[in-house]
Amino acid sequence: MEDKLIIGGQELESRLFIGTGKFSSHEIIPKVIAASGSQVITMALRRVNFSNEQDNVLNYIDKKCILLPNTSGARNAEEAVRIARIAREAGCGHWVKIEVISDNKYLLPDNYETIRATEILAKEGFVVLPYMSPDLMAAKRLEEAGAAAVMPLGAPIGTNRGLMTRELLRILIAEIKVPIIVDAGIGRPSQAAEAMEMGAAAVLVNTAIATAQDPVQTARAFSLAVQAGRMAFLSGPGAVQEYAVASSPLTGFLHK
Amino acid sequence: MEDKLIIGGQELESRLFIGTGKFSSHEIIPKVIAASGSQVITMALRRVNFSNEQDNVLNYIDKKCILLPNTSGARNAEEAVRIARIAREAGCGHWVKIEVISDNKYLLPDNYETIRATEILAKEGFVVLPYMSPDLMAAKRLEEAGAAAVMPLGAPIGTNRGLMTRELLRILIAEIKVPIIVDAGIGRPSQAAEAMEMGAAAVLVNTAIATAQDPVQTARAFSLAVQAGRMAFLSGPGAVQEYAVASSPLTGFLHK
Amino acid sequence: MEDKLIIGGQELESRLFIGTGKFSSHEIIPKVIAASGSQVITMALRRVNFSNEQDNVLNYIDKKCILLPNTSGARNAEEAVRIARIAREAGCGHWVKIEVISDNKYLLPDNYETIRATEILAKEGFVVLPYMSPDLMAAKRLEEAGAAAVMPLGAPIGTNRGLMTRELLRILIAEIKVPIIVDAGIGRPSQAAEAMEMGAAAVLVNTAIATAQDPVQTARAFSLAVQAGRMAFLSGPGAVQEYAVASSPLTGFLHK
Amino acid sequence: MEDKLIIGGQELESRLFIGTGKFSSHEIIPKVIAASGSQVITMALRRVNFSNEQDNVLNYIDKKCILLPNTSGARNAEEAVRIARIAREAGCGHWVKIEVISDNKYLLPDNYETIRATEILAKEGFVVLPYMSPDLMAAKRLEEAGAAAVMPLGAPIGTNRGLMTRELLRILIAEIKVPIIVDAGIGRPSQAAEAMEMGAAAVLVNTAIATAQDPVQTARAFSLAVQAGRMAFLSGPGAVQEYAVASSPLTGFLHK
Repeated sequence: MEDKLIIGGQELESRLFIGTGKFSSHEIIPKVIAASGSQVITMALRRVNFSNEQDNVLNYIDKKCILLPNTSGARNAEEAVRIARIAREAGCGHWVKIEVISDNKYLLPDNYETIRATEILAKEGFVVLPYMSPDLMAAKRLEEAGAAAVMPLGAPIGTNRGLMTRELLRILIAEIKVPIIVDAGIGRPSQAAEAMEMGAAAVLVNTAIATAQDPVQTARAFSLAVQAGRMAFLSGPGAVQEYAVASSPLTGFLHK
Repeated sequence: MEDKLIIGGQELESRLFIGTGKFSSHEIIPKVIAASGSQVITMALRRVNFSNEQDNVLNYIDKKCILLPNTSGARNAEEAVRIARIAREAGCGHWVKIEVISDNKYLLPDNYETIRATEILAKEGFVVLPYMSPDLMAAKRLEEAGAAAVMPLGAPIGTNRGLMTRELLRILIAEIKVPIIVDAGIGRPSQAAEAMEMGAAAVLVNTAIATAQDPVQTARAFSLAVQAGRMAFLSGPGAVQEYAVASSPLTGFLHK
Repeated sequence: MEDKLIIGGQELESRLFIGTGKFSSHEIIPKVIAASGSQVITMALRRVNFSNEQDNVLNYIDKKCILLPNTSGARNAEEAVRIARIAREAGCGHWVKIEVISDNKYLLPDNYETIRATEILAKEGFVVLPYMSPDLMAAKRLEEAGAAAVMPLGAPIGTNRGLMTRELLRILIAEIKVPIIVDAGIGRPSQAAEAMEMGAAAVLVNTAIATAQDPVQTARAFSLAVQAGRMAFLSGPGAVQEYAVASSPLTGFLHK
Repeated sequence: MEDKLIIGGQELESRLFIGTGKFSSHEIIPKVIAASGSQVITMALRRVNFSNEQDNVLNYIDKKCILLPNTSGARNAEEAVRIARIAREAGCGHWVKIEVISDNKYLLPDNYETIRATEILAKEGFVVLPYMSPDLMAAKRLEEAGAAAVMPLGAPIGTNRGLMTRELLRILIAEIKVPIIVDAGIGRPSQAAEAMEMGAAAVLVNTAIATAQDPVQTARAFSLAVQAGRMAFLSGPGAVQEYAVASSPLTGFLHK
């Protein structure tokens, strides 16, 4: 089955994006990336300690992966734009995940500032993937502003609460043409699978892997779940029924 | 990772059991079994047409698989017992899935008759896997009666409604010592994964595979999802939080 | 609107049954009963301290109410039968709520023993209301055994978890002829309303009222919610839609 | 209990707002308003046929009610502003519900345009209640723009799907200082009660009442449910437990 995800002109086989935050040490990151099969890896530019090789997260990411620096720490469009440019100049490539957050409790994104930043950066040639609060009209504006994909949240970052916004995600998937990548809130492989079954193009998982007791095994689990969900989406799931439908003949040979 | 499921003295590597009902033709069954990786295959004894080789579902099941004839069509313990004995005599082995159903609309099992049949058949040396309505005290009685595992339903047979009984399943998983195999109602891989994440020992899927547009691909999807859910269970999932927890540092270098 | 609930030959106007356990003091019980409008009040026979008037919960229950002594503490049918008989002889009337529980962690009822006790007590002229784990075949047996109503749980006693078993309750409501009274687990008025909207005949609430910060006000809240849910059930709710349906004309006069 | 909702300087006793769209005839509207106890009634300005008294919905709304003309039909801020001004000039008062919608399938609001319209109208002295997609940062901007309350949706208009966005609503209720009025999607009284239990200040219901088989009775049901939910919120609900907590003593006198 030929089923490639194309973003920013890149063909991707894996539909699981992962993050590098919250791991107990950098040393585990290469194993997690390998187990996940991920081809797109996000990291906060702040973590990229260019003056200390050992502390530099970039040294732990396979060169074949696409770097997706994020603008975490940005509180408005200007700051996000500035971080994106620094990342590109520093050699992190031209992909960027926009995060503009000024809410410190739920870490919810600011769609308005995110649209502004997307507009500027898309024009500058970035492949822009904006993290967003799931809202159809904002997603349409992001699309118009040149986003390569949109990344609506399933639940607040780091909560592991799952697809709490599934009703809104469902609508985004139906109405938006660029890929929908569910980001934030996915806490278990079953939730990643469900997002894919709904028709999401990919998911981004960080906390659920990084804070699991066994991150490498958990990365593998998410990888399988994302594949399972995607296959189910492509295979056309059976209909949901109100009443039971027998799998086996009920009137057996005993009653002939 | 050594993680075997042992039932009736048999070591099983696959935790996905599948059924053979509702497929458009027998010919697809071997491909579905291969794609699913299943080692335990259930079929209604009624389907075992011993007088016609081509119509005999047994001829489409890999000899390495464990046959799990079910007593579908039985309306009380006596009928279930009789079907089980016929199955054994006919060479279908000594495993049996007890289904006693007299409700024709929701096809819900009769726990009371099921307990009676389990008691009789366990004494006769069968490996008894009873399909049941999720109820803790009935599960305890099935365990005492000699069930090798118990098979509570997630939702009525064939509905694809998922883990509608998850609250009761959760309790069975916590309190019952024999393996819990969630049977009936699982309609999508994400639901199979969730059952495994909760600690189910295995799941049985039939309708969701047999009625998918692409049954072979769907079988593969369920196989991956079951593995994903099991891995996540073993890896110790992260905690669910009410508030957000940042994956990346929020106070970026812009604000130093 | 004439809408009476008839149980054991009694016409009831209120569809909210309440319990008397867990209150901080007996003194608040009359106010709670008045606020709830309940006509059927359950209490553990053990609380009926016949030798001490002040500690006797019966003295705090309005004489117009129907007493529904329960057999809590019973671990099998025989004990439940014995408690029921003691209650009747002690002047608590001939209604009885059967509770047979041997699981100390989730306090889940034993349907099998409950059916046995129901059979015996119904023959002795009791109005028998059995507390049960929601299971269609067990409910059918309770009906046949002479239960005046059946009382399936929404979630384990005292958990305030709500209608976790709604899928099974829905089936009981559709298939069982005697009234379905949802008992245990209802933690908020919205959940009581939902049970009634689904077609439950009544609900029994205890913990959620007794452990609220303001039990009297909470009793009133449940009373209103039960009425609201019942009215909605009788009024025929509107259909659930997948897409939006405008309440107001979308093409306004601006676009004429 | 003194528990008034104050919006735009008006003290309101009822926390149920209702709409006037979709009723089979204008004649039923006064009965519905009376049964609902509502004090705030919304209507599309388009329905206000000033040239025909009989077709003019205003003639069916009790003079004691506050009119809440909505800008349905507006596709951007300018159109919303224009409709609001026309409504005020026509004598419909100075309250306005802003609806800016350009999505014809799900009828989801445009938060960006809504913020712009709110800013303009609040400065002109309107009491502005904006209908919005539940998004924390947009709600903060509406608050700053002078909204008297914000009206996030539970599900798309007219779907009767309930509080599908409850995770986001919960956050708005926690973080926004002006009243949160849940608008759109509420299909049953239990859902209205749940919104109030969560701490919503009020709910607006239209489709669920207008399309019920018995709209007057349904209005009454919603009124009771809203009161029930509000009482429960104020009374401090009991905690949700994982395990059971006995209502009655388990070790009965039989075992002394």
